[in-house]
Formats: sequence, structure tokens, C-alpha cells
Amino acid sequence: MDSTTSGSAKSDLTEYLDKNYSRTRDELFDLLRIPSVSAKSEHNADTARTAEWVRSALETAGMKATIFPTPGHAIVVGEWRGAPDAPTVLVYGHYDVQPPEPLDLWTSPPFEPTIRNGNIYARGSVDDKGQLFLHIKAIQAHLATRGKLPVNVVVIAEGEEEIGSDNLEKFIEDKKDLLAAEAVVISDSAMFAPRQPSILSSLRGLAYFELNVKGPSVDLHSGAYGGAVVNPAMALAKILSTMHDDNGHIAIEGFYDSVRTWEPADINQMKTLPFDSETFRQETGSPELGGEKGYSILEQLWSRPTLEVNGLLSGYTSEGAKTVLPSKAMAKVSCRLVPDQNPADIEKLILAHVQKVAPKGVTATVKFLHGGRPWKAELTGPLYDAARRALATAFAKPPVLVGEGGSIPVVGDFERILGAPVLLVGFGLPGENAHAPDEWMSEENFKIGMRAMATFWDEYGVASKTD
Amino acid sequence: MDSTTSGSAKSDLTEYLDKNYSRTRDELFDLLRIPSVSAKSEHNADTARTAEWVRSALETAGMKATIFPTPGHAIVVGEWRGAPDAPTVLVYGHYDVQPPEPLDLWTSPPFEPTIRNGNIYARGSVDDKGQLFLHIKAIQAHLATRGKLPVNVVVIAEGEEEIGSDNLEKFIEDKKDLLAAEAVVISDSAMFAPRQPSILSSLRGLAYFELNVKGPSVDLHSGAYGGAVVNPAMALAKILSTMHDDNGHIAIEGFYDSVRTWEPADINQMKTLPFDSETFRQETGSPELGGEKGYSILEQLWSRPTLEVNGLLSGYTSEGAKTVLPSKAMAKVSCRLVPDQNPADIEKLILAHVQKVAPKGVTATVKFLHGGRPWKAELTGPLYDAARRALATAFAKPPVLVGEGGSIPVVGDFERILGAPVLLVGFGLPGENAHAPDEWMSEENFKIGMRAMATFWDEYGVASKTD
Repeated sequence: MDSTTSGSAKSDLTEYLDKNYSRTRDELFDLLRIPSVSAKSEHNADTARTAEWVRSALETAGMKATIFPTPGHAIVVGEWRGAPDAPTVLVYGHYDVQPPEPLDLWTSPPFEPTIRNGNIYARGSVDDKGQLFLHIKAIQAHLATRGKLPVNVVVIAEGEEEIGSDNLEKFIEDKKDLLAAEAVVISDSAMFAPRQPSILSSLRGLAYFELNVKGPSVDLHSGAYGGAVVNPAMALAKILSTMHDDNGHIAIEGFYDSVRTWEPADINQMKTLPFDSETFRQETGSPELGGEKGYSILEQLWSRPTLEVNGLLSGYTSEGAKTVLPSKAMAKVSCRLVPDQNPADIEKLILAHVQKVAPKGVTATVKFLHGGRPWKAELTGPLYDAARRALATAFAKPPVLVGEGGSIPVVGDFERILGAPVLLVGFGLPGENAHAPDEWMSEENFKIGMRAMATFWDEYGVASKTD
Repeated sequence: MDSTTSGSAKSDLTEYLDKNYSRTRDELFDLLRIPSVSAKSEHNADTARTAEWVRSALETAGMKATIFPTPGHAIVVGEWRGAPDAPTVLVYGHYDVQPPEPLDLWTSPPFEPTIRNGNIYARGSVDDKGQLFLHIKAIQAHLATRGKLPVNVVVIAEGEEEIGSDNLEKFIEDKKDLLAAEAVVISDSAMFAPRQPSILSSLRGLAYFELNVKGPSVDLHSGAYGGAVVNPAMALAKILSTMHDDNGHIAIEGFYDSVRTWEPADINQMKTLPFDSETFRQETGSPELGGEKGYSILEQLWSRPTLEVNGLLSGYTSEGAKTVLPSKAMAKVSCRLVPDQNPADIEKLILAHVQKVAPKGVTATVKFLHGGRPWKAELTGPLYDAARRALATAFAKPPVLVGEGGSIPVVGDFERILGAPVLLVGFGLPGENAHAPDEWMSEENFKIGMRAMATFWDEYGVASKTD
């Protein structure tokens, strides 16, 4: 689909990419054929083979490439440092994939890449092998046609993203000098809609708790004791029910104190996005949508914090009737956080609230399980200017800014350890089945993605000089 | 311990029971040695052997005795019908026992009866072999010393009480003529306190439900969807939290409409019982007691209905943090009912309430699982007069009326099918471990129980004539 570049003469980079596309696709398919399922030790050899494949591809592109063992799967680093006076950009991606199961729901086998309706179907096609490889090829386009890049580039590809990136943070700390960069680029997300280039500008953080309510010392007979003993499952329900008001606001004192109000420009931009709430509702299968009143769905998902019950357990839960008055009840409760909330403060507020509302006759405790800070990009400076221009050129349409309701912890790690801004620019699409059967990546997006990132290096070279 | 009969000349019945006590105890121990665990098919031969043992004991007592097979364990019936113009009384008991596990918590083995501190320790000692056998021996005292009883007596002993009495109701229906009686006597409960004879005058009923709340069609990612989708676990908590007001009253419209107010005499009698709320609290292990304000603990347990959560299940409940927005949530909820509530009405009220309070964005359904009517004795007439006098004589202290917060479904079955009042007179004691390790029955209560029931037949013979 070349219409997107019509009107402008083909650059040397685009020409190189187009001319070599058939081979590039063959190479991508080779990469997709290796079942680098990081979660399964039976695939450890495959995962190691994939690291070696990536190392070799980085070398072919013209970079110096090294495999670094970790206690888990290896990290591959490619370096091109031929622009001594220019800044350095770090490109992050991952070469491991989700388990493909259930296999019987795949239309074509997960590790036999197949093109249908313009999409490349394979496990890892969009998450994240396709997006990692398009970066390598964009770099190769520069080095093959011009022998150099406008800036220094370091590529880091890990093999444990799908199992929690356990060894990545320490690696970044340990190799701070190797990875030192003025900017970080990550392509591991989706565009808002087809042919709508997108820059991901915010992520929500997380504060995850376990709430335990203890009543009698053992499960009691609900006949012999029911009526005089405070039921911890009912007490838990009462506690949880106080956490939202009738308008869906979180009714915990101080909860919104640190919530940054989004700029009117951000909100207005959000309103221009092609979003249909009925389509979204159907996607969830909910009979009706809800949430915090006074906010649009995208605002609810991107700009507002949440408090969700993730799990409930108490007493008898199997088939039929057992007349037990349970001794305890448990809820998993988590908050998605937005700037400038932080998990430690939220922990204190939740604890204070639970202690305030817990009924007499039970003991309620709160255990902090997991947390992560929210993130919002500073959308100024050469990194974002270059990205906007490169995407606008490649897609013949300016990019939109989108938010993400979930969390990508590595973003915060890079910013904190390297002190560099992070650009999240993804080429996936809604419905891509990233963690499900029939994962796919649009072949058009793969092609345009290579062009966009090739252009990005030129744009960033210029923008970082004039900054 | 003969002090309880001091002041009155020993009757021929008491003399017979005392003279033969050593043999009686040996026989009881023989009965207790058979592991008639109805729940375990590996004990089916033992359970059948126990039925045969009971049949033989009834014959030895002087009754005609028959074993009736059922699809489960057999029912044994003993008959003495030598008083053609007198009424007939049906005595119910059960010869099966609870499983003894965990075995390592028994001080002496469960099927090796052992006396310690005046108590007979064995599985089934109090529940219900000891209480069934004391009835057989009381009948034997009459037939051995006098060759007759003042009234006709039928004994029915089932072998499935500990597994739900599945075949009993149909047996009563089918054998209505065989079991026809003017009164029913059951000894399968406990006295309120040591040396305090007790008549159980009320039982609570039950209405047991499963409440299911359905939100999105599948579990969703709490980051990608949290904030816009109504969380069914939170919705369930909200629904449950509306079911009581702040005073512990059940806040379901119409719930108390059929609740009979207890007579002041009943309440006053209750207040005279030796009951210590702090001891009760310690027994539960709760940090503080609660329940419906304005009622004493015994009123809460015996005379007031309840609504309890018996179980909760939703989403992720294992270790650690999983950021799921669950697609559904379930609660087991049950009400203990008091006269004149009935399960069918309560089902309608709960359903209407849930539909009224369920938040938009979820679908809430209520499934009725199990129910039973409450019961309150009509404490007038020859049956109760005779029981009061017999207990007062045997214990040298008048009996008190006590309630029970749980349910004994067979009571309602006998009343409904046979049209006869039921007398619940038990010789167990608090702390007897009926379903736990180290089950015991007071040897004194076993002895006095035989005497009391032997006396009962005389008293009932007189009372039923003058009625």
C-alpha cells in the first residue's frame, strides 16, 4: 500500500526498504518460526536460538552485537556509535513471546507465519518480534545506503518481557554506561485505529492490596452462632461498599489529592479520536458501561484512577449449600494510579480508610502486594518533534496522542535509571490478539513502520541539533 | 450419682436400672465399638452390623423388631403394642455416627469407649447411640419388671442421620400406618448446662441461596478496561451491604412481616438461664459480638431470623497480584428463619431486593438451593406435662425450655406426616464434641436419662388418660 507516500519522492531509505522487502519478510518469518516461549523451560533452547538470531540480525544491519547472559533468558545489545558528537538513542524491544495455547483456536499454526487479509498471523508477530525487527531494518536502511546514522543507536532486546522482566532493571543499573542515552524508543504497543499513527503519552500506575477480614477463630455453624457473631464476609462487603460513592468516585479521603488534571488540549485531542462507546461496550460484553460520572470512557481509562476488586474468597464456595459462618474473608483490591499519585501514599490512605470503616467484631488488615508509578510523557523536545514528523510523513497523517490504562514498568525504569525521556510509538492495531490465539500484525503497518522509523532517525538527527 | 433421687423411695424401674447398670454399660460399649460411619462405604458392613445390633437390643428389651432396607442404610423399627386402648408414642434416634477424623486429635481411640472424669469418650457416645440406647433400656425396665408399658411404643432408628436422612421422609410417608403415633420423642440434643434438664422448644428454619452477579463476558485486564466497566465483585459487595442496616436488622422489605414475637413468658424464662456472654464470645474467638441491636444473645440465636454470607468467590484468589477485572462474582447467602416465616416467601423477598439494589452494568440472579421451615413447640398437653414431671423427678430440678439456632428437618417431617407433636429432650451437654474429636457423653446423664425416660412412660400414661 504505497498511497501513503504518494506525493513525495521516494527517499533512498524507502527505496532500499522497498527493494529488499521480499527478503526482509522472509527473514521476519524465520524469526517468527522460532517458538521463543519464555514461560516454558522446554523452549529454553528455542529462546536462546532466538537471542542468537537477533544478535546476528543486528550484525547484518551493521551494528556491533553482544549477547549478555542473565539468570534467566539472555539480553541482546546492538551498538552503533559512529556519530561521536551526536546524541545516543536506546531502542528497546523483546524477542520472547507468550505461550500459544490453546492451539486449537489458531486458524493457522502459531509458529508457521501466514498472511491472510493483509495481516501476518503468528505468535509474536506484533508482540514484539515484528516491531523489534522493523527497528533493526530501519537502522539497516541507513547503514546500508549511507554507511552511517545521524545519531548513535543502541538496541536492547530482552527475552523475559512476557514473564515480568525480572532481570532487566538490574541489567539497566549494572550497564548504565553501555545503555546511556539521551532518549529511549519503544515499539510494543498499538495504534488507536488503522492508519492512525499514535504516540502513547500516558500509562497508569498500580497499587495492589490484599484485604483480610478475620472474625471468629474457626468456621462456625451458621445455625448455632448466626445472629450473634459478626460475619467477616458480610463485613468485607460492607467495607468494600464504602470505597465508591453513588457516582463512581472513589470515596477514600485524600485519594484524589495528587491527581493531576489533564490539560484542556489533551482532553480536546482525546475527543477527536475515532471512538465508539457502543463498540467498546460490545467488546467488553457488559450489559451497560459505568464508572466515574462526568468523564468520557477514554478519560476514565487513561486520565482517572480506579479502585477495582480483583478477587473475593470466603467460606464455602463449592456446589450446593453449606451452612458455615466463615472465620475469614479476603479481597484482592487494586488501584490504577494517574500522575502524580504514588503507590506508597495510596497504601496509607487505603489502610486508614479500612480501619475507619471496618465494623466492630472483626479485624481487618491490609497487605500491600505490588505497585508501580503512573507515567505521563513530557511531549516537548526533539524526541517528540522528530516522532511526530516521521509518523506524519510515513502515514501521510499526523499522529494522535493516546493513553493506556495499564502499566509498562520498564518505561519508568529507563526514565529513572538513564534519566532519558521515553517515546512509546507502536504499530499494532486494536484486535491484534497480542496474548490470544490468532495473533497478527498488519503487513502494511510493518512496512510503514520500517519507513517511519528510518525517517525518524533523520528527523531526530536534525531536531536534536537544533534543540 | 444417686443424690438426684434422694428423698423419694426407689421405684421398681430405678431399682432394675441400677441393678443391671454394669451389664447395660457393657452393652453400650459394645454398641459404641462398632464404627457405623454412614458417610463411608468402607464401613457399610459395620453400619449393617449396627442395625442388627439395635434390632437385637430392641428384641431383648421385649419389643418386636424389624430391619427395613432402604436404598441407603437400613431403618430399624421396634414395636410394643400391648396397650390397645392407650395412645402410641414414637421414639426416634439414629445409630450411625460422624466420621472420626482427624484421628490424631483423639485422646483415646474413637471406637474404644473410655471413661475419664465421669464422661464416656467414644464417637457416637452422645450423638446418638448413647441417647438411643437409654431409650431402649428405659423401655426394657418397664417390660422386664412389669411385663408391660402404660402406652404403646414404637422405636425407629435410622442409619443416615449424619448424611442427610435422605431415605427417612419417604419411609415415614410409606409406613405411615406402622409409625402412626399420638406423640414423638427425640433425644438427639443437649441440655443447656450440667444438671439442668432441658426441653428443646424451638428450631430455626433455613432459606439458602446462591447470588450470582455477571458483568463483562470474560475476565478483563483491569488496566485496559478498569474505570469504565462495572466490576461485578464490587457490585456484589454493594448488594450484600444493603442487606443489613447499621443496627444489624435485615433491611429487606417485608422480611420481618411473618416473624412471631415471643411471649414475654418465653423471654423471661430465657433470662433465667445460666448464660455468660463473655464465655460465649471466647468460645467463638470473635474480638467482639454483634448482631441485631436490642436483643440478647439467646434471643438473637433462638428467636430472631438471620441473613449470613456463607461464601464468596470472584476473580483471582491465589497468591500474589493478578490484575483481573472479573467477569462474575458469587455469594452463598442463607437466612435462618423463625416462626412464621417460610422459605418460599423469603425467596421472593430476597429476589425482589436484589433486583431493586443491583447496580446498572451487571446482571444479578438468585438461585434457591435449600430450605426448611422453622419450628416452635406447642408446649401444652400430656406430652409436655409428662416430660416436665419425669425430668423434674430424675434430675430433682424442673426442666427449662431452650431454643436452638439450627434446624432438625426430621422434626417437621414427623409433625407434618404423622400429625403428632414432637418432644425434643436431650441428655447431651455443652462442649460434648458431637462432630469433633473426643466426643463424650456424661455417664451421669446416661444413667439419669434412662431413669427419666422410664419415669416418662408412667407420667405419660397418666397424663394421656386425664387429657
